[in-house]
Amino acid sequence: MDLKSKIRDIKDFPEKGIIFRDITTLLKDSEAMMYSVDEIIKNLNPDDFDIVIGPESRGFIFGMPVAYNLKKGFVPVRKKGKLPAKVISKDYALEYGTATIEIHEDAIKKGTRVAIIDDLLATGGTAKAIAELIEEMGGVVSSFNFLIELDDLKGRDVLSGYKVNSIIHY
Amino acid sequence: MDLKSKIRDIKDFPEKGIIFRDITTLLKDSEAMMYSVDEIIKNLNPDDFDIVIGPESRGFIFGMPVAYNLKKGFVPVRKKGKLPAKVISKDYALEYGTATIEIHEDAIKKGTRVAIIDDLLATGGTAKAIAELIEEMGGVVSSFNFLIELDDLKGRDVLSGYKVNSIIHY
Repeated sequence: MDLKSKIRDIKDFPEKGIIFRDITTLLKDSEAMMYSVDEIIKNLNPDDFDIVIGPESRGFIFGMPVAYNLKKGFVPVRKKGKLPAKVISKDYALEYGTATIEIHEDAIKKGTRVAIIDDLLATGGTAKAIAELIEEMGGVVSSFNFLIELDDLKGRDVLSGYKVNSIIHY
Repeated sequence: MDLKSKIRDIKDFPEKGIIFRDITTLLKDSEAMMYSVDEIIKNLNPDDFDIVIGPESRGFIFGMPVAYNLKKGFVPVRKKGKLPAKVISKDYALEYGTATIEIHEDAIKKGTRVAIIDDLLATGGTAKAIAELIEEMGGVVSSFNFLIELDDLKGRDVLSGYKVNSIIHY
């Protein structure tokens, strides 16, 4: 299926000069949505990981159907202040300023192997921060899995040493 | 399955006097997560609706696996400023102040029947706002589907006239 034809390009969002790849047109098309989830699943061997990690909030969109289909638990990584129990936090640099992600401290045990699922690999900053968070907890990153990879931004280089799967490349 | 035993109660979050029902402990347990999704699905007849609506961000968590399993498209309702294309917005009252939800204006056609899926029915304010948004666009709310309903807050009364399904009651 030509998934790019299901994605809407929006110029100058969120700021001038950016082409935003809008997946909502793909999601509302049941066949394209299901095909996208299935393609992410095809890259995964269920024996290689114990749990699915999905970052807020578009990582929830693809992470949950993948977890359901592969009979794995799902662990959300969220922005600061959203998770109610005791968390481990990680600050990371953005183009301007910093951001913070959090995970429940009891979500990952030592040795837990995780498949990280998100909609988009851009600069790789958030993905790298998630990997560092998991590893600080004693977890092991089995793979990164993205629907879309923006090749020019070289996020794959930031994630060198990790297995990185992407379905659509721009 | 006793799903309540999988949900973690957190006292005084997000503020004093509130018991927060933390579903992350349910989500990371693959059997409890899958059982929860399956129970939501059991209440739905796929012939009764065309599309699944999930509000940001925990509505994404249950909405997507339900949409995938029932072969329906998924439409996100998001907080202000998150959706990149042209939106229709709705302000609604919170206990203190107001909030705004948005949906892409081309996400729902006249006559589209929607199943709304979210993790929690509390006061029903957000749910009612979503229903009004859908109806202003010419859509039809087929059902509301929640994992958890906080009976004391009487959200069901706010949604009177709608079909409301919940799996767990507190």
